[in-house]
Amino acid sequence: MRILVVLAHPERKSLNAALSQVILDELHVQGHEVRISDLYAMGWKAQIDRDDFPELPDDQPLRIPSASRDAYHTASLTDDVASEQEKLLWADTVIIQFPLWWFTMPAILKGWVDRVFSCGFAYGVGEHNDKHWGDRYGEGVFAGKRAMLVVTTGGWEQHYSARGINGPMEDLLFPINHGILFYAGFEVLPPFVAYRADNLDKAGFQTAADNLRERVRSLALTDPIPYRYQNRGDYEIPTMVLRQDIECEGREGFRIHQASSLQQSS
Amino acid sequence: MRILVVLAHPERKSLNAALSQVILDELHVQGHEVRISDLYAMGWKAQIDRDDFPELPDDQPLRIPSASRDAYHTASLTDDVASEQEKLLWADTVIIQFPLWWFTMPAILKGWVDRVFSCGFAYGVGEHNDKHWGDRYGEGVFAGKRAMLVVTTGGWEQHYSARGINGPMEDLLFPINHGILFYAGFEVLPPFVAYRADNLDKAGFQTAADNLRERVRSLALTDPIPYRYQNRGDYEIPTMVLRQDIECEGREGFRIHQASSLQQSS
Repeated sequence: MRILVVLAHPERKSLNAALSQVILDELHVQGHEVRISDLYAMGWKAQIDRDDFPELPDDQPLRIPSASRDAYHTASLTDDVASEQEKLLWADTVIIQFPLWWFTMPAILKGWVDRVFSCGFAYGVGEHNDKHWGDRYGEGVFAGKRAMLVVTTGGWEQHYSARGINGPMEDLLFPINHGILFYAGFEVLPPFVAYRADNLDKAGFQTAADNLRERVRSLALTDPIPYRYQNRGDYEIPTMVLRQDIECEGREGFRIHQASSLQQSS
Repeated sequence: MRILVVLAHPERKSLNAALSQVILDELHVQGHEVRISDLYAMGWKAQIDRDDFPELPDDQPLRIPSASRDAYHTASLTDDVASEQEKLLWADTVIIQFPLWWFTMPAILKGWVDRVFSCGFAYGVGEHNDKHWGDRYGEGVFAGKRAMLVVTTGGWEQHYSARGINGPMEDLLFPINHGILFYAGFEVLPPFVAYRADNLDKAGFQTAADNLRERVRSLALTDPIPYRYQNRGDYEIPTMVLRQDIECEGREGFRIHQASSLQQSS
């Protein structure tokens, strides 16, 4: 397989870096082709701004969707962005590893999404009609590819449990897994999460590393999160509301956008 | 009142900028003292990295919590960060305005949080014992202050409704409102959201502006979101799990961390 690993941690002597090495070593053992986007090492520019669109006339206001669509279609995106898009198209599987800071990704990684997931590339694609509302949520440029988050937290696992004060990890990662990755077409694997990253002893690290290795070995076999496809009948178009006759067994919020065992996405 | 307005949009000729002006004009009419952090205009550095900690010895690995705690306590944070902390301490109300990009804030704003909300300042504060697990979730440096998000989206309101495909807006903003603002002590007001920002006609803008003006006028009077306080008995310590005897009337996920009308946070 061709695997892109995206890393967003500033320190090589860290648990994150040690876990990255576990991933890379195991991918090597398995004989995969691997490319790496180590955002801090690359000096990745985090904020999207006017400099991202060198062809945008000075007298024209910056509207990100149209500017990024025009730049994408005229191949005038900056080289750093075009290079990341090329890597994403090359890969069949993408692993994105980051420390959870303030319950989401570090700014540098958010900036990778803001800048690389251009209009016309990762959103704003496909036809709009009464059966099909753009290629998104299960369709799009990354359809057929897989993605998996590898996340570390300082906090305890219980704090992220179903009734934990931080909110369930599954829900905290939903805007990334569903809103970014599935939106742009990826099949999204359940995340790998290492809790209390700053307090792992040697045995704790070994356990985390063993579990991570197993996840890397089973990348091609793991069932993706069963998010509902937008254009396969579960949603009203164009309101994009889940059909009222689809029962969600008391679930609410983000949970209803997964097909349960009884209610497979058609 | 003393009000800090934090802005995160790159273009002055935009709906976001027009709404910012509505906020600033109304604050002026009301006679408030106002300071502004216009992150793009300031050239705000988005990513937290080693340069944030000039006193950190070269041979010491960068661990963000300890580095930021040491720098905060020795007043050796960079000037840009120290200045934002001073503004936050000065303000009694903070308004944070941004376009929703990929279902959360732009990278530059996430970087403002990552860098300014230092350990020892906005987290990692307070005693830990069996009744009190740090000053967080309703306590902390910003206790007694209020915060409100002002958000614009390209998407339709229905897409963000209870069963909308993007997930409910309330849940998408939970990691910010609860995980960042309430965590650090703010009382968090319900957000102001303008949908389909790129498609507002003149009448649509007037309606949005009128509603926003009303929210600005009622800043001091609006009831905050009734998130549960961590240290007032609703959570087990140290697991931080909501007490099993607290019924949530079928709610799950993020929703259980609000006291309902029947189950006031004690």
